[in-house]
Amino acid sequence: MAAVTKANPTSCKVVLAGAVAKDLLTEVSEGLSRLGRSPLLVGFLANTDPAARKYAEWTDRTCGENGFKFELREVDREDLETNLLAANEDDGVDGIIVYYPIFGSRQDQYLQQVTEVSKDVEGLSHGYIFKLYHNERFLDKDMSQKSLLPCTPLAVLKILDYLRVYNSILPHGNRLFGRSITVVNRSETVGRPLAALLANDGACVYSVDVTGVQQFTRGEGIRKSRHEVVEKEGWGLEQCVPLSDVVICGVPGESFKLPTQLLREGAVCINFSTEKVCGFPPEPKHRLTDLDKKNFEFDVKDKASMYVPAIGKVTIVMLLRNLLVSRNPKM
Amino acid sequence: MAAVTKANPTSCKVVLAGAVAKDLLTEVSEGLSRLGRSPLLVGFLANTDPAARKYAEWTDRTCGENGFKFELREVDREDLETNLLAANEDDGVDGIIVYYPIFGSRQDQYLQQVTEVSKDVEGLSHGYIFKLYHNERFLDKDMSQKSLLPCTPLAVLKILDYLRVYNSILPHGNRLFGRSITVVNRSETVGRPLAALLANDGACVYSVDVTGVQQFTRGEGIRKSRHEVVEKEGWGLEQCVPLSDVVICGVPGESFKLPTQLLREGAVCINFSTEKVCGFPPEPKHRLTDLDKKNFEFDVKDKASMYVPAIGKVTIVMLLRNLLVSRNPKM
Repeated sequence: MAAVTKANPTSCKVVLAGAVAKDLLTEVSEGLSRLGRSPLLVGFLANTDPAARKYAEWTDRTCGENGFKFELREVDREDLETNLLAANEDDGVDGIIVYYPIFGSRQDQYLQQVTEVSKDVEGLSHGYIFKLYHNERFLDKDMSQKSLLPCTPLAVLKILDYLRVYNSILPHGNRLFGRSITVVNRSETVGRPLAALLANDGACVYSVDVTGVQQFTRGEGIRKSRHEVVEKEGWGLEQCVPLSDVVICGVPGESFKLPTQLLREGAVCINFSTEKVCGFPPEPKHRLTDLDKKNFEFDVKDKASMYVPAIGKVTIVMLLRNLLVSRNPKM
Repeated sequence: MAAVTKANPTSCKVVLAGAVAKDLLTEVSEGLSRLGRSPLLVGFLANTDPAARKYAEWTDRTCGENGFKFELREVDREDLETNLLAANEDDGVDGIIVYYPIFGSRQDQYLQQVTEVSKDVEGLSHGYIFKLYHNERFLDKDMSQKSLLPCTPLAVLKILDYLRVYNSILPHGNRLFGRSITVVNRSETVGRPLAALLANDGACVYSVDVTGVQQFTRGEGIRKSRHEVVEKEGWGLEQCVPLSDVVICGVPGESFKLPTQLLREGAVCINFSTEKVCGFPPEPKHRLTDLDKKNFEFDVKDKASMYVPAIGKVTIVMLLRNLLVSRNPKM
């Protein structure tokens, strides 16, 4: 075959979260119409972290633009639990978000469970996370109340759906069958639930952190009803990234860069290293100054078919969506 | 992670060509309305092959069901060329199909080029195939007349589109970027043009026949405007099938079976080993008795996410589509 005459600079499609968020906001708007009133989201700020304040302002603006009421309550961290319990009891409060870190210790995980499940729009209550790991979609046997998913993993799922990585020709629940996905981050708030969700939907997932690689799958022929986890002894990024159709990175800070050379030709790449939209950042030390830092190298576009540099705008829509679903089981 | 309780027999979705054909027939029906008349397809039968006659009958029925006129002309093989030239000249004839084999030798390739290009609904004229290999979509510089694609490769493309292997989020022409596809068959009428089409649309294609494996791609980052071909020395199915998201097999006869164990978990598998819808079968010795023979093993469904056991019903719709496009450049 003869040599080729024309060359293009890059064939990578860069997809911005705003484009994905736009479609999803339409759904949110429809859900709001069905609810027939403007629900109240209450945010609790109990630290002096400028990033936390910025996200509170961002929540405020997004709520205002989309017909939701938002109220920021600034409290001393010692008073937070009492205030959360009061908001739990208050019928006027539809949803609660807490801007972490509060104490920056295990006590924050305790506080996370204080919010009433039905008002936890971040989807991080144990009851929700338990259902997620067990691949169960509803809280009750009558299937009248959906179990919420945590905002950031849910945002990644919505982006993968937008990118057609979810194959709509396959039945719901199996739409990632045949996809191999590496997730670099195994935090309890994002990386581990995300790996579980992807594997529950049929993918072969490689979950990577500093301790090594774990494989999450539903087994051969995805015959199992939920994922199982296998340690991949001796594996690193070098083993799993070249096998992956999709690579999702969420390592905070500047030091980690995924080597472009490891990527499969035409991989789909998603960065969430700089996100702090829901209350929990990937790490407490995550700061505003990291907002322009990504986990992919500048030349990722030479290799990827699609690249999503940030996901925050989708995550915040998921917050609104979760609020509506928790108020309106029919949604 | 605990063991899993529920198990399903198989998660493979079997997609029948009839389902794909249904959607495409709607388009054909719309094209026919725009044309505003019932075009005439003429078929030439010059052999006693029962498979050829069966396909002539099948063309007849499909034409009748979809508003096309069909006329079968049975001629001696020595008179075929004269009859083809007369049909070329006849304004009443819109499209021509020849049921091969005629002589079963190189003379059949000569006859294939006798049909007037604008009446060659099989899309096998040199002018069409040349455009195909060069990834050019139109016959003329004004882009007023589309270059037809051969029916069987085009049917495979339409099936891959239906299966969402073509990713509609990417621009037209790059929608297979990131996919790896093995095509087992490198015939001039199906396998080689198919590999070229898939690579031109952005895929990494492994084209396999008894002589070995060739890789068809547009190079790193699919920067080239059309595919190039590289011999993969020492490669066989063992090397390329495990790398492939999609495996397409069209080896006539009963002896070839693709080993299921080589398939990637969740691969998409398409069989066209038993097709003889357009005039050319994969091999002249192809017979009706092969119609229930497939190139995949019975257990393919244990490994594949989607399996298409036959494609003939789509191929014949492509014949009608090509006829309409050749008559109606706006389609």
